[in-house]
Amino acid sequence: MKVLVANLGSTSFKYRLFDMRDERQLARGGVERIGADQSDSFVEAGGQRRESTVSAPDHGAAVQQCLRELTDPQLRCLASADEVSAIGFKAVHGGRVGGVGRVENDLLAAMEEMAKVAPAHNPPYVAAMRQVHEKLPHIPLVAAFETGFHLTNPPRLKHYAAPVEWAESFGVRRWGFHGASHRYVGQRTAELLGRDDLRVISCHLGGSSSVCAIRGGESVATSMGMSPQSGLPQNNRIGDFDPFALPVLMDRLGKTLDETLALLANECGLKGLSGSSGDVRDLADAAERGDERARLALDVYTTSVRHYLGAYLVELGGTDVIAFAGGIGENRADLRRAICGGLGELGVVLDEEKNAGAREEGPLHAEESRVQIWIVPTNEELIVARQTQQFLEQS
Amino acid sequence: MKVLVANLGSTSFKYRLFDMRDERQLARGGVERIGADQSDSFVEAGGQRRESTVSAPDHGAAVQQCLRELTDPQLRCLASADEVSAIGFKAVHGGRVGGVGRVENDLLAAMEEMAKVAPAHNPPYVAAMRQVHEKLPHIPLVAAFETGFHLTNPPRLKHYAAPVEWAESFGVRRWGFHGASHRYVGQRTAELLGRDDLRVISCHLGGSSSVCAIRGGESVATSMGMSPQSGLPQNNRIGDFDPFALPVLMDRLGKTLDETLALLANECGLKGLSGSSGDVRDLADAAERGDERARLALDVYTTSVRHYLGAYLVELGGTDVIAFAGGIGENRADLRRAICGGLGELGVVLDEEKNAGAREEGPLHAEESRVQIWIVPTNEELIVARQTQQFLEQS
Repeated sequence: MKVLVANLGSTSFKYRLFDMRDERQLARGGVERIGADQSDSFVEAGGQRRESTVSAPDHGAAVQQCLRELTDPQLRCLASADEVSAIGFKAVHGGRVGGVGRVENDLLAAMEEMAKVAPAHNPPYVAAMRQVHEKLPHIPLVAAFETGFHLTNPPRLKHYAAPVEWAESFGVRRWGFHGASHRYVGQRTAELLGRDDLRVISCHLGGSSSVCAIRGGESVATSMGMSPQSGLPQNNRIGDFDPFALPVLMDRLGKTLDETLALLANECGLKGLSGSSGDVRDLADAAERGDERARLALDVYTTSVRHYLGAYLVELGGTDVIAFAGGIGENRADLRRAICGGLGELGVVLDEEKNAGAREEGPLHAEESRVQIWIVPTNEELIVARQTQQFLEQS
Repeated sequence: MKVLVANLGSTSFKYRLFDMRDERQLARGGVERIGADQSDSFVEAGGQRRESTVSAPDHGAAVQQCLRELTDPQLRCLASADEVSAIGFKAVHGGRVGGVGRVENDLLAAMEEMAKVAPAHNPPYVAAMRQVHEKLPHIPLVAAFETGFHLTNPPRLKHYAAPVEWAESFGVRRWGFHGASHRYVGQRTAELLGRDDLRVISCHLGGSSSVCAIRGGESVATSMGMSPQSGLPQNNRIGDFDPFALPVLMDRLGKTLDETLALLANECGLKGLSGSSGDVRDLADAAERGDERARLALDVYTTSVRHYLGAYLVELGGTDVIAFAGGIGENRADLRRAICGGLGELGVVLDEEKNAGAREEGPLHAEESRVQIWIVPTNEELIVARQTQQFLEQS
């Protein structure tokens, strides 16, 4: 079975093509600037990379374009588009739909119900899924939601301290996101350490970040709540925030609630705090040059990761592994160092030398550390491919 | 110097009278049902307790009534009301005013600016302070704000991940509350253990609850943020909540933002979650009888305390003391047990026997526990009396 895994942005489409017999990645590619007069397309397969300028007025056309490229005989990926058993979407907020489902009207309606909760994620996904379904009605489309991995969280961690009806009838509860990444980290650490009863604190740190407490491969708790704007600060999203600040903000800024929430979703996070950039690479450079706000933004970020690290140390009664994944988690030795610093009393000791240059999968902890610390480069697409395959086989 | 410390509710006034030469409490008392046709007054001093029915149309009249009682020759508290050097108010949200200040127009205006942020606390306080000032213009009134103790929190913990201007110009930042209680716990644990460099996690658990990380007597971090509705769930207030749930709630409930925030401030917390009571005594009884929502409310509460306990373990790089104060912290062995459970790996071991019946100041940790666990009955009024004295002496 071959599965194409799709990752959508508002004007982009990226994919990976897997042969599920051996979970081999056959190709990756994508289209940027969808909807512009000319769009940029690329594909990598069999050691080749091709770039081209194409016409992709919408996401449906972009997917068609990619399938055309993949069936090019020289690439040897697909004999025909019919070989693609399904397209699996790494979708964000499914609300009441939960884990994995076929993309059809009810699922799209459930995503639309959460449009204001995940304004950067759900609306472009719904639009793109509709277009792809229109252009390729014969290919099954499957959505694997980022919320799915956290369905195992116990009620005491799912519920806000609010009427139970709000959770049951309106979906006002902690959902959690980055499920594909945290699930991968849970599975991969179990493989690496040869144990399926591990307690893992998974730190998915990147343009968007969250921390997840995992026990025996199952999510117990995670830092994002009802919306992907909660939890850790994100590049331009605020993270945890007190709703009772809203009337003050609205009054002082002269803005409506919707406008104020849009600020929280687009103009806050590292970008808002630093006043310059939401990218930690820029911020680290600026901090080096003495920019105090950039320093503050990085400190707020690492402090917030440590906040959840501690919360989950207690939730799990200690941990076996702390795992770093994502663009920041895999590449930023300085931030890993700040996050793990001063925790010897709690059994967490980073090996400074191992950490310094590390970017690949491997351990970072000192010999005396009771807790293992690892880089585990994530593979969210493989998880979505597996979930898509499993869904098709069971349905 | 004699200082009267006032604790105000919307229809109540409670006080303690201290002789600051030796910090002895000379009397306590109060008036309930202020504004009703008849109000209930009580006073305790010199081993006597008296109750009476009085006329107290407003808080100013209630304070006058109490001063009349205290000057009764039989009680031997005060020869005349002029002996009261000041009234110190345990005030809640001072916003830009910060720690301690004389009650005058600018301070009252600063409190009014935070009226929507602390709707249950600031408006009744402002009204009552005005009335007391009107009736007793010759007695200095001093406000010691609950936010004051947390002014030492470092910027990385004060700031939300939002533009710095929001904090500096609008007061949109983490303020923290229960400052008098946490300050007392910090000072008292230092006395008890004979060390002034202690790391203490202070759990003030009661009708209103918060956790505070203290190092060397100074607040480093605390669970309440911009408003007293954030942090841990309270009896009827929500605690941490995702602002992006608001549009969904407003839409589904057909309510305005102000109405929805009023629900979060009055109909949530333990009361909202259980659907029955906001009092842990009722909830424990109901849970015993098999009431699942009462059980859930208690579990959400203790899980949330553990969340902050963990966060502050990491923030402090381990702790020397976990201290329990407040009505729940001092009296509920069952909840202390749930909060400390399963933390042996992190060096926290409760002595089940010591814990079981304990309600007084004393240690609760097992011999093998690296972390000391104490009950430290709080004395917020003494802190306010000290702050009031210090303020008068310096101004």
